[in-house]
Amino acid sequence: MERREGFNYMPKGKPAPVVRPGEFVFAAVGLDHAHIGGMINGLLEAGATLKYLFDPDKAKMEVYKKMFPQARIASCEEEVLSDPEVRLVASACVPSERCALGLRVMDAGKDYFADKPPLTTLEQLESAKKKAERTGRKYAVYYSERIHNEEAVFAGELIKKGAIGNVIQTIGLGPHRLSADLRPDWFFVKKKYGGILCDIGSHQVEQFLYYTGASDAAVVRSQIANYAHPQHPELDDFGDCMLVVDNGASGYFRVDWFTPDGLSNWGDGRTFILGTEGFIELRKYMNLGEKSGSRVYLANNKEETSFDVRGKVGFPFFGQLILDCLNRTETAMKQEHAFKAAELAIKAQLMAEKIK
Amino acid sequence: MERREGFNYMPKGKPAPVVRPGEFVFAAVGLDHAHIGGMINGLLEAGATLKYLFDPDKAKMEVYKKMFPQARIASCEEEVLSDPEVRLVASACVPSERCALGLRVMDAGKDYFADKPPLTTLEQLESAKKKAERTGRKYAVYYSERIHNEEAVFAGELIKKGAIGNVIQTIGLGPHRLSADLRPDWFFVKKKYGGILCDIGSHQVEQFLYYTGASDAAVVRSQIANYAHPQHPELDDFGDCMLVVDNGASGYFRVDWFTPDGLSNWGDGRTFILGTEGFIELRKYMNLGEKSGSRVYLANNKEETSFDVRGKVGFPFFGQLILDCLNRTETAMKQEHAFKAAELAIKAQLMAEKIK
Repeated sequence: MERREGFNYMPKGKPAPVVRPGEFVFAAVGLDHAHIGGMINGLLEAGATLKYLFDPDKAKMEVYKKMFPQARIASCEEEVLSDPEVRLVASACVPSERCALGLRVMDAGKDYFADKPPLTTLEQLESAKKKAERTGRKYAVYYSERIHNEEAVFAGELIKKGAIGNVIQTIGLGPHRLSADLRPDWFFVKKKYGGILCDIGSHQVEQFLYYTGASDAAVVRSQIANYAHPQHPELDDFGDCMLVVDNGASGYFRVDWFTPDGLSNWGDGRTFILGTEGFIELRKYMNLGEKSGSRVYLANNKEETSFDVRGKVGFPFFGQLILDCLNRTETAMKQEHAFKAAELAIKAQLMAEKIK
Repeated sequence: MERREGFNYMPKGKPAPVVRPGEFVFAAVGLDHAHIGGMINGLLEAGATLKYLFDPDKAKMEVYKKMFPQARIASCEEEVLSDPEVRLVASACVPSERCALGLRVMDAGKDYFADKPPLTTLEQLESAKKKAERTGRKYAVYYSERIHNEEAVFAGELIKKGAIGNVIQTIGLGPHRLSADLRPDWFFVKKKYGGILCDIGSHQVEQFLYYTGASDAAVVRSQIANYAHPQHPELDDFGDCMLVVDNGASGYFRVDWFTPDGLSNWGDGRTFILGTEGFIELRKYMNLGEKSGSRVYLANNKEETSFDVRGKVGFPFFGQLILDCLNRTETAMKQEHAFKAAELAIKAQLMAEKIK
């Protein structure tokens, strides 16, 4: 088993370029989390051109240079930010540093594409919002568990078609394999990773907002725990949360670091979407105990069925993001939505009762 | 599709008599909920002898007389309660009336076996507790979603064997098909059915307490809603709840009446049990989108696997209950546990925020 698979999340989609080579140039700055590979790859599949890689740590640049040999290794961040050809900077630097980099990127007149969690404090959120407003630049976010997951994308299409009526509730399970020995130090420092609800919880909040169509919600209960990792006292190895929307729709999610080593995948991620006329279950990365792979299940008043959507749906987010940057539109994801998911994840973390 | 299947819950187990014919005689009084069929059948498979059926409504008695022709139709409740041969009275009368009947049964020196929810108010709970203490009689409860479900029984065995380490959290999904046109009037009167968290939620609380091994817990958040049934204003068509145990274990459950007509079963009930060293998923009554039927999934540090336990595990509860009644033991389920599940379900209902 490849124990790094969980954090080397780089799904292969259907290449669907929306621009010609050189028409949309980007750089990757801050390579701390391996999500950056997925972010780069998604943009490349949509036709973008990777010009630079930069990280203060040369070893990290070498890793990605091997994966993306077309990219130049920049000598410093400034080399990237001062290059007018670069339209967008993608980053998976340490979570607590993502905002500061984003502010510099936007000040340089470029759009920003941050790994999740895009922000770790409400103060960062405020400054990011202000900067985006003042500069007109984007602070886009890689909420990979929806935008880079074909099952999750397909679920959105089913809901839009009315397959389950009105969405009244979502449940998200986001278990992850810890592989503590392979994690960097910052991973265990709460101020740096933000806490479990802020970090991997932000995926869950984003999915909840997306599937319910909500523009805001209240965190009505959130909890964190460290059940089994006393050697990492600042690690939340468990977190869960309940959210309620003004219109009455609600959501629950659980995130944890308890994927056991015997599981065939880094995490048995699930999403359950309950509607007034049916429900959807996403087995997002695997099909527990079966060999059939990830799958979408649907039951409504007409039928009970399932869909194998792998390789069929693709990841429209990346092409839409490129066109949004070029055309100053908001098709891929509204700025407000990206910020709101981060805000609620941070609030869930701040309000969390420590139950163990 | 048999739309009544959901409320005609009568699983067939492995007959495993613990007594000879006539050694343990019981009666069924109050046939309002079809669960009574499952209760009777479970006891019969364990060797008990059904002597009487009684309900004020003759039509109901006729229905069960056809299913259990060996039973006599009693002329009145008193005929049953005054018969010294009857050791236990089983009842699925209207939920709000279950306690009053139980008090009469215990006063008559007999043990009582109530369908869930066994009680609908804290005042009833108090009087039932006192009566049980004073008379030494049992107020046993048919929490069918665990005790009459082989997958649920098997999960308990896996946990006892240490298959997933310490249980840190459970998630229960208890969707049910409404089939409103087939339901009696009391089903839609909150004072009579108790509210969704009190009613089908009590199954969930019981499973949570059982799998976490908790003797008590706090309801930290509960919600109810009526999303789509304005014609039945007192129906909660949705409810969910979070519970926390002193030792830090926690639980979430959702119950609802939104099983769509296209589903091949009355409800896609699930239980997820998260441990420090693995997890279990129960697909309790069906396997969504597949034809393989109900199944138990296990992943831990050694393996990822699944079990088809149908017809293999049986329902030890019923034989244990019979022997408990004969020997004055508490093997099937502790009285305190049965009451605690009811108490927390009632409290969840009382505390529930109405979100729609």
